Amino acid sequence: MSETNGAPAEQPQSLPERPKGEEEGEKGPSKNALKKAAKDKEKAEKAAKRKAAEEAQKKESEANDVSAEDYGELPMIGSKAYTAPSVPTTWVELAEIAQRYSSQSETEGVGAQIVFRAAVENARNQSAKLSFLVFRQGADSIQAVVAASEKLSRQMVKFAGSIPAESIVDVHAEVQRPREPVKSTSIQHLEVHVQKLYIVSKAEAQLPLQVADAERPIPEEGKEDQQEDEGRPIVGLATRLNNRVIDLRARHNDAIFEIKAGVVQLFQEFLFARNFRLVQTPKLLGAPSEGGASVFEVSYFDKKAYLAQSPQLYKQMLIAARKERVMEVGTIFRAENSNTARHLTEFIGLDLEMAFKEDYHEVVTLLEELMLHIFNGLRTRYSKETDLVRSIYHVEDFKLPAAGAVPRLSFAEGIRMLKDDGVEIGEFDDLSTPDEKRLGALVLKKYGSDFYVLDQYPLAIRPFYTMPSAATQAAYDAKDPNAGYSNSYDFFMRGQEIMSGAQRIHDAAFLERRMKEHVAPVDPQSEGLRDYVNAFRYGCPPHAGGGIGLERIVMLWLGLPNVRLASLFPRDPGRLMP
Amino acid sequence: MSETNGAPAEQPQSLPERPKGEEEGEKGPSKNALKKAAKDKEKAEKAAKRKAAEEAQKKESEANDVSAEDYGELPMIGSKAYTAPSVPTTWVELAEIAQRYSSQSETEGVGAQIVFRAAVENARNQSAKLSFLVFRQGADSIQAVVAASEKLSRQMVKFAGSIPAESIVDVHAEVQRPREPVKSTSIQHLEVHVQKLYIVSKAEAQLPLQVADAERPIPEEGKEDQQEDEGRPIVGLATRLNNRVIDLRARHNDAIFEIKAGVVQLFQEFLFARNFRLVQTPKLLGAPSEGGASVFEVSYFDKKAYLAQSPQLYKQMLIAARKERVMEVGTIFRAENSNTARHLTEFIGLDLEMAFKEDYHEVVTLLEELMLHIFNGLRTRYSKETDLVRSIYHVEDFKLPAAGAVPRLSFAEGIRMLKDDGVEIGEFDDLSTPDEKRLGALVLKKYGSDFYVLDQYPLAIRPFYTMPSAATQAAYDAKDPNAGYSNSYDFFMRGQEIMSGAQRIHDAAFLERRMKEHVAPVDPQSEGLRDYVNAFRYGCPPHAGGGIGLERIVMLWLGLPNVRLASLFPRDPGRLMP
Repeated sequence: MSETNGAPAEQPQSLPERPKGEEEGEKGPSKNALKKAAKDKEKAEKAAKRKAAEEAQKKESEANDVSAEDYGELPMIGSKAYTAPSVPTTWVELAEIAQRYSSQSETEGVGAQIVFRAAVENARNQSAKLSFLVFRQGADSIQAVVAASEKLSRQMVKFAGSIPAESIVDVHAEVQRPREPVKSTSIQHLEVHVQKLYIVSKAEAQLPLQVADAERPIPEEGKEDQQEDEGRPIVGLATRLNNRVIDLRARHNDAIFEIKAGVVQLFQEFLFARNFRLVQTPKLLGAPSEGGASVFEVSYFDKKAYLAQSPQLYKQMLIAARKERVMEVGTIFRAENSNTARHLTEFIGLDLEMAFKEDYHEVVTLLEELMLHIFNGLRTRYSKETDLVRSIYHVEDFKLPAAGAVPRLSFAEGIRMLKDDGVEIGEFDDLSTPDEKRLGALVLKKYGSDFYVLDQYPLAIRPFYTMPSAATQAAYDAKDPNAGYSNSYDFFMRGQEIMSGAQRIHDAAFLERRMKEHVAPVDPQSEGLRDYVNAFRYGCPPHAGGGIGLERIVMLWLGLPNVRLASLFPRDPGRLMP
Repeated sequence: MSETNGAPAEQPQSLPERPKGEEEGEKGPSKNALKKAAKDKEKAEKAAKRKAAEEAQKKESEANDVSAEDYGELPMIGSKAYTAPSVPTTWVELAEIAQRYSSQSETEGVGAQIVFRAAVENARNQSAKLSFLVFRQGADSIQAVVAASEKLSRQMVKFAGSIPAESIVDVHAEVQRPREPVKSTSIQHLEVHVQKLYIVSKAEAQLPLQVADAERPIPEEGKEDQQEDEGRPIVGLATRLNNRVIDLRARHNDAIFEIKAGVVQLFQEFLFARNFRLVQTPKLLGAPSEGGASVFEVSYFDKKAYLAQSPQLYKQMLIAARKERVMEVGTIFRAENSNTARHLTEFIGLDLEMAFKEDYHEVVTLLEELMLHIFNGLRTRYSKETDLVRSIYHVEDFKLPAAGAVPRLSFAEGIRMLKDDGVEIGEFDDLSTPDEKRLGALVLKKYGSDFYVLDQYPLAIRPFYTMPSAATQAAYDAKDPNAGYSNSYDFFMRGQEIMSGAQRIHDAAFLERRMKEHVAPVDPQSEGLRDYVNAFRYGCPPHAGGGIGLERIVMLWLGLPNVRLASLFPRDPGRLMP
């Protein structure tokens, strides 16, 4: 596999050969084996003859091929510049070219020589003299013409029209203006006339999934078995995820992950600017700390370890360690055996925790501003990607509150709104998913916002570390220790929870008491909680925080029908591959 | 626990009470038990009398206490503004004050009224009329004077001087200039005269670790048993890590994690600006993919899962999915039973992978620039933190190459340098840790840089997915498939590896061949590798990348003696807590 100078098409392609089969066993051959061997020999001889004939023809053909050096398969590109006959010096991007020659002028850009690397979206031989291809780079595509001429052989035309879709190629071409705008490509006012064309990486002819099929939405709920829509195949989610490397090439899938990266960036930039420190808390724990039901167990040398279900206890310990403001972007593991469109067993948590001075609403306000920063950032910086994905899934725009006035309702008020709407629900009942969606619709109607905050949840339905509300604290000794409200909140998008948070108890003695008196009591002296409780014996400021599910924000911002679409390689109880 | 208006010190402190003990059993009491009960009763009566007397005295004392409303323990701060007698409106930071009144003038700032929250570094009663405290916020500390006067009672002086170290307090005070600069605090030209002082969170009197002890270096290697140095106790690493919440309050520990967050930020900002996309690859895998020896096994419902040892295979699959340039900041799990100063079982990987056009050195160059961006960023933005940590561990400055000329040596040249220096080593031998350190010293001597790159490692000592070098490829069919060099590289800091990377094989057929012909062969059709190999059947550009150990960079930049110091809650074969 030399990478010295010379025409790549003429180099022997030693590497793509499949490795030789297993060696024969040690036993002597049977009669059948001898018969088979004789047949095989005959076959091999025939094949050799055929091959020799083909090669002779190929050689003759190459000898007559004026374009012989202008196309073919390149050797694997590696440590030295591969040398196509004329060394390309400047690689361009199609988007660059489209913008550079964007005027209405019919001659602008015409004749410009460019070199680029792209994927072949499709290729077809129109005739012996003419092939058409579509080249693609990300979301950009352009039509290419390969026309036989004195300088361009019919062999090359045939080669070009036969390149398997999804192959990666290097293209040397001249820019032209098509007579009519090209309808099937993103760049419509330009096309390229190919002069040289080399395959960098050849795709197999049969792909397990077509990118064009991946570019249509997944089947609607209840219609998973539908095979086609308007004559085009509908490919189910499982097939897509099984072939995720191809699936992710779909333009809207690419946009989803551009947006996901954007959310992380917006989250970090807002908090960095407010003196939050990015931290990483451990994912391997010595004991299950937040309830053992949904925790994964790990073999840890001769012991057991457990995968962290959240950074909750550790980010609080960092507040106790005087870090004041911390954020984390990290993996969350949940061993919930739920096969719904909303659950993953592994996802990314955007977590934060901060000390406050007088009132935990200082934190709620910051969290609201954070979410608005993310939404506004998505709206301004990622509008193209957002529109693309929503156009596939036919989703309505996400309605933001006017001028930063995020609706912040008390839980009691939420219950009242639901009751007024005819829902039968008790004052201190937890909201079911349908209740939440209904309340989201009511809030949207009343406040015109798809984003709102529900504050002061009942104490009984929140974790043991949640601080009771002022009134609940005041009456604490006199009543049922799980009655009343708490300084906790959920944030909602389109009626679905995206963040849960609260003020946490920062007094060790009261924390121990709440652990024992909680509806689901835990032992403050257990191995997994002892260090956590102790952290509050050494002086700790009042603090609050929250955790946001990254995939859930992306799903709800875009209106995706399934959270798996917001995970590159999603994990659920039935899926660990690819 | 009311948070209504009123003097906090006068409110009953209902909450810090311990919960009541377990109820008595059902059996009738024994004679001994009756005796004990009688004794207990007597004791209880005495205690009640004592308590009553104390309370009477306290009441009288409070009645005579002009400062009664100006000090005490606050109730737990929660959802309403707690109301100290005069509501503080503006909270200040000590650093702010130090800077605001930084002139040489003896009167500037004198008499300014400020309110702040801080930790008590220490407190002592100098006399019945005078107490001194040191208040601390992060790295900033200031001296405080509590002096009895007509307006400030002796009771308050006593209270102030008795506050346990590490308690969190709210302070209302007047700024003053001390006669002499204060030597024991970071702010030396100012002090505060306390007017009101409330405990927000009281630390226990006996701490398991003193912050002052945590502020000295860990014992040197081989001196772990040393008990003290110059009359001060030396606290070992284990004690510190067992009490990490206190340990992390040490100024240099805080600086370490400020720098660690800085490295992540520098990594991301450099790569975002170069169109890398931040991605998250799965940490739960269906099968061990990169060799089963050092992988943690997870119980995954009724199946087994495995924790990812690196995002290697997934980031390559994303290149095959046409993502062109990806980066990840994520957790890495390594089940290596190594109890060295350099190994963790859980750490943070800074990973990247990118497609290149003609030569994998395009990637090496970008990686060099990335590292220089990080080093220069640390030097300019984190010089204070860097100097602080290095002053504790007496470490020399990190020498960067002149004007961006990173020494990039071939592996063969590295071997030559070692041989010339008297090391016995074969041409294709892997470098031992001592060899690496020796080579680092030689490179430093020759090129004046603590940072350098070793390129073109022997093929045999790199993973199966590593692309052979051009010469090795050219001769591949004719020779031992594990002879020769590869397009791979390691990056070094102070003679220790921080990043390993390579060009990867992007051709499925050749990849399968290398998997089988590697010195440690793997099965391309195994469950954990099948999807990975298939990813290269659908057209994939040439690509290369690398992975950086975040904790290792921090350790080597600062010259820390143990990588655990660069992990908030480090994990090793013997440690899963806290």
